[in-house]
Amino acid sequence: MPAPAELPIGVFDSGVGGLTVVRALRQQLPREHILYFGDTARVPYGIKSPDTVRQYAAQITDFLLERRIKLLIIACNTVAAVAADAVRERASVPVLDVIEAGAEAALATTRNNQIGIIGTLTTVNSGAYHQAIMARRAATQVYSQACPLLVPLVEEGWLDHRVTLLTAQEYLTPLLATNIDTLVLGCTHYPLLRGLLQTVVGEHIQLVDSAENTARLTAKRLAADGLLNLGPPPAQLACFVTDVPQRFQFIGEQFLGEPLNHIELLRW
Amino acid sequence: MPAPAELPIGVFDSGVGGLTVVRALRQQLPREHILYFGDTARVPYGIKSPDTVRQYAAQITDFLLERRIKLLIIACNTVAAVAADAVRERASVPVLDVIEAGAEAALATTRNNQIGIIGTLTTVNSGAYHQAIMARRAATQVYSQACPLLVPLVEEGWLDHRVTLLTAQEYLTPLLATNIDTLVLGCTHYPLLRGLLQTVVGEHIQLVDSAENTARLTAKRLAADGLLNLGPPPAQLACFVTDVPQRFQFIGEQFLGEPLNHIELLRW
Repeated sequence: MPAPAELPIGVFDSGVGGLTVVRALRQQLPREHILYFGDTARVPYGIKSPDTVRQYAAQITDFLLERRIKLLIIACNTVAAVAADAVRERASVPVLDVIEAGAEAALATTRNNQIGIIGTLTTVNSGAYHQAIMARRAATQVYSQACPLLVPLVEEGWLDHRVTLLTAQEYLTPLLATNIDTLVLGCTHYPLLRGLLQTVVGEHIQLVDSAENTARLTAKRLAADGLLNLGPPPAQLACFVTDVPQRFQFIGEQFLGEPLNHIELLRW
Repeated sequence: MPAPAELPIGVFDSGVGGLTVVRALRQQLPREHILYFGDTARVPYGIKSPDTVRQYAAQITDFLLERRIKLLIIACNTVAAVAADAVRERASVPVLDVIEAGAEAALATTRNNQIGIIGTLTTVNSGAYHQAIMARRAATQVYSQACPLLVPLVEEGWLDHRVTLLTAQEYLTPLLATNIDTLVLGCTHYPLLRGLLQTVVGEHIQLVDSAENTARLTAKRLAADGLLNLGPPPAQLACFVTDVPQRFQFIGEQFLGEPLNHIELLRW
């Protein structure tokens, strides 16, 4: 039986997007083992109802807890937006989520306290970023915009395509009419569009991506709890997915930045 | 217990798209009761693996058969492409599908035997339209093109948007370099883009939509089997869905062309 510090970190997302968080974890915490769960059969979550997302999140949380983990990361903004409480209620280990991490990163970045948020329909409609920011600094203006087509555009691989540029321009026009100086990429797919989004919003707006800050908060929390793994790197990364769609490997490796080995298919 | 002719027709799709088939059925067969199943929690199917699509299709077939139906229509091109056999094996009633219907409609339309197909990734990669056409007329040239972004664009409601036009132009350019005179809209979402697609391909190419022909084949089959319902219209339409996402009602009614009442939510 491994010591608690040797247990893996559990990370889950609706699909492959959460691998951007895994990538940041691997860079900042190369000694930590990771179990990644991508619900690739039921992706995307961002267009589903909150009840359905909560049901799926509970099922995945139970699955990862049964495999013994020392900390759980909700790497899906939509789950963090509507099901973080449900996950925390079930989990016997600390739970971190990308919305907390994104909100804190945005507050550390903004100078004029005017922050924009982009995300899926379910994330934006939940108001979760708004609440997370307001709870930390009430004197902030938050403007949000749902961008439903950006996920399929990333999955199509049109990362630098004229259609993606036009789509982003259309979605972001209302935000550009405000005075935001910070824009949160509130979906784990969006970091792949960072260059294009920066072009659309201009250099005076800082883009904030919650992956880096999630890894930072994880390191802090593990250190505080005496749970940092001191074993030699490289640590193991095992992935569980509910489907292996065409192009999965290709897209996943783009998100992760390293080869995806150890993929286990679950038929749920 | 109702007489066999009074039983409903079962129709299923991954989401709301199959309501274009229901619309054609309601016009051509106004006396027929319909049970519609939309797997809205697990939509879209077009990016999932064939195994997963087969598993879902089997589950829905069993559900509809238990409720007693006289005929089953696979109104999802992706299911028809990779799971029609699995559905037929389980079903004790006649099964019609949109690919058979689309292939026959295309062959009835073309004059030069050069046919284009557009559909989801899974549909196009399956080669099912190609096979269905070749089995009926081997001396045909078939060209196909996957158009993964058209479904999310329809679901976003961008039916007549510059981004949709550019996307369609990009996808259709290779087909326009051939001599096709007929283009099959091989996905139940695409009829909502008929106007825009016609603009892109030009008036010399006929667009074929399998919804109308599916309804025609259904009428023919019910008549042949002595199963036409002779009761007075209007007949009942009941819908089962696995999620009620935001905008469901709005999109559904656009597909159907009449109000969506009687929606029952199943938590699978």
